[in-house]
Amino acid sequence: MSGREFFSVRTLAEALDGFRPSRRTTTETVPLSGALHRTPAVEVRAPAPLPGFARSTVDGYAVRAADTYGASEGLPTYLEVTGSVRMGARPEASVPAGGCLAVPTGAALPADADAVVMVEYTAATTPGTIEVRRPVAPGAGLVRADEDVAIGDVLVCPGRPLRAADLGLLAAAGVRAVDVHVRPRVWILSTGDEIVPPETTELTEGQVRDATTSALAALIRDAGGDPVAGGIVPDDPAALVSALHVALADADLVVVSAGSSVGARDETAAAIAELGEIYCHGLAIKPGKPTLLAVCDDVPVLGLPGNPLSALVVFRLLGVPLVWRLGGCEHLPPEPVVRARLARDLPSAAGRLDVVQVSLRDGVADPIHGPSALLRVLARADGYVVIPEAATGLAAGAEVEAVLYR
Amino acid sequence: MSGREFFSVRTLAEALDGFRPSRRTTTETVPLSGALHRTPAVEVRAPAPLPGFARSTVDGYAVRAADTYGASEGLPTYLEVTGSVRMGARPEASVPAGGCLAVPTGAALPADADAVVMVEYTAATTPGTIEVRRPVAPGAGLVRADEDVAIGDVLVCPGRPLRAADLGLLAAAGVRAVDVHVRPRVWILSTGDEIVPPETTELTEGQVRDATTSALAALIRDAGGDPVAGGIVPDDPAALVSALHVALADADLVVVSAGSSVGARDETAAAIAELGEIYCHGLAIKPGKPTLLAVCDDVPVLGLPGNPLSALVVFRLLGVPLVWRLGGCEHLPPEPVVRARLARDLPSAAGRLDVVQVSLRDGVADPIHGPSALLRVLARADGYVVIPEAATGLAAGAEVEAVLYR
Repeated sequence: MSGREFFSVRTLAEALDGFRPSRRTTTETVPLSGALHRTPAVEVRAPAPLPGFARSTVDGYAVRAADTYGASEGLPTYLEVTGSVRMGARPEASVPAGGCLAVPTGAALPADADAVVMVEYTAATTPGTIEVRRPVAPGAGLVRADEDVAIGDVLVCPGRPLRAADLGLLAAAGVRAVDVHVRPRVWILSTGDEIVPPETTELTEGQVRDATTSALAALIRDAGGDPVAGGIVPDDPAALVSALHVALADADLVVVSAGSSVGARDETAAAIAELGEIYCHGLAIKPGKPTLLAVCDDVPVLGLPGNPLSALVVFRLLGVPLVWRLGGCEHLPPEPVVRARLARDLPSAAGRLDVVQVSLRDGVADPIHGPSALLRVLARADGYVVIPEAATGLAAGAEVEAVLYR
Repeated sequence: MSGREFFSVRTLAEALDGFRPSRRTTTETVPLSGALHRTPAVEVRAPAPLPGFARSTVDGYAVRAADTYGASEGLPTYLEVTGSVRMGARPEASVPAGGCLAVPTGAALPADADAVVMVEYTAATTPGTIEVRRPVAPGAGLVRADEDVAIGDVLVCPGRPLRAADLGLLAAAGVRAVDVHVRPRVWILSTGDEIVPPETTELTEGQVRDATTSALAALIRDAGGDPVAGGIVPDDPAALVSALHVALADADLVVVSAGSSVGARDETAAAIAELGEIYCHGLAIKPGKPTLLAVCDDVPVLGLPGNPLSALVVFRLLGVPLVWRLGGCEHLPPEPVVRARLARDLPSAAGRLDVVQVSLRDGVADPIHGPSALLRVLARADGYVVIPEAATGLAAGAEVEAVLYR
């Protein structure tokens, strides 16, 4: 570790662009029923065309289009109804010249037919015969056998998590399983002599329950990751190095919620520096300044501020994209945003990005203030507003874009 | 069933406002680790205050504020350092008049202290003594024992699905389990003689694999529901009534993807009318006109159009909010939206709401056209644009709001 890098402060944009670990998880095959939001590792191509047969898209009569040329309201064409096509069955008869077969929407087109006349443009005046009152062109009222998907067409691409519609398309194509990236294993280490497990019922004065692990685990799950609660590590460099060794051997990403005091943070940074290369130590963001990014043994390590609110702000901005990418996702799912007007002035120092928690009502974003040590600030917020580095604050009434929590 | 209601066509807004089944699922207790995105059934109040003790928010010295009054750079106050507070431990000593204890960020405030002076405003010039160069007011540099949460404060409210930050707050408060609504059981019945299970490898001409069930199941899961694949029902009224009976006995919502032909749709409507009250049959929307809403035995029933694209469009707009609400959710999670400019003119008939699938790139929304029978239209779309009932189309270049798929 060079001393130069050790205290390098980066902007959020620099960290997002510059810290791009190449690590990706391996792949596994999952059934379609478990593939929602999983990221395909390879493209999936159609083994067969869809719908697989020329198919009527209307209720009507399968015809030879040429037989209808010249038909009009005043001078309809008469076609003999020689049969009908049943849904889901191979048509038994073909369409003779001057004849037609009744077909429901979705049924297969019989042989020698090249169009379907909608029932609305026909009249059944004589039993066994229909009047056709409009001409149809070849191809009307149907989709071709490979019009939805041709054999070999790409059904889903790697790098974009699967959505509901993708699963429908894969099911239609007879694809029963997909090769996807394994969920990244994200170890969470909570450090601090004051931290006790959440299940602790009686607290000694000075102790606080671990809030960060539960919240981080939720964000990790939403980003397609597999959170591993690595336990609580005391403020002791040797204990942290030892815990990091265990985590690094199994993890795709290690998240350390550093102790809250300056001394504890420095010890965390020193322990991580001992095991790998620090990319940045310090982020020009509020809250979240004491953020650390490193790579140890090819595993990215994210050191978060000690207080839960700051930790969650930073993890949402830096950790969530990391988890997605480690799991092979190149196109991150969109986040809900809303435009709103600021209820109050928001001061900000230039050169620092501010993340302000807001409550939202009727298009107005009201900043929620309070010491960053308060968890309730975050639980009360509907979302957050970012004041970019260049700005020195935003005035009441300014239009802002709020990212919404869900 | 009155004939008058049977063919009543509603707008989407009417259906969303007017069709509000009162049914809600029962409740169950889940551990915090499984509570993400679950909807609390009752409010959860704090069993104890948070942080639970007066807590330093800075690295510094716990003092009696009055001892610092009058301190300045030029004329600092001198305080004796009589000890220090360890993280996570009850302070052993109190602060004597004229003295102070060193405290790290996050540690408990010792007795008789009422403020913490940041280390930056002090200097350690003589061993055992610090200079204080700024006065502090009582309460500075700390949070009160109940400043984050007072005993009995509401931690989470019913009706809003739990987010990451809520789980953190609950963990901090020592809440280990939450009473949430049971996931609504949503039965999916696919009807149509042409539909075969997705696992079918060899298709006869005229057969198509069930695509809708896989896609609907995904949307149901994302809305907090528990999808139940109720199987494929042939186009036979008795078979459908029988399948509906089974579904209604177990379901919180029954979704029927009606057959695609007019005859099959009418039979579906007739079967549902036989078992309950139809709210509307026909929605002024494209695609999705042959949508049916009903309540049978206190269970809402949603009849979807037969083709998968139309079915998914309608389910997203009407079914997803229903599933959320059945599961006790009153504040639906926000959806990602983006403003974009239309790449092309979009015609639309007045009086009908159009849902147009779009691909999005560089702020431009490009409509994806094609027969609504095509699944790939939906799988290729990044989201959709709504043209409201009153509009007769949108011009190329118009700014639109696209709802994004994720």
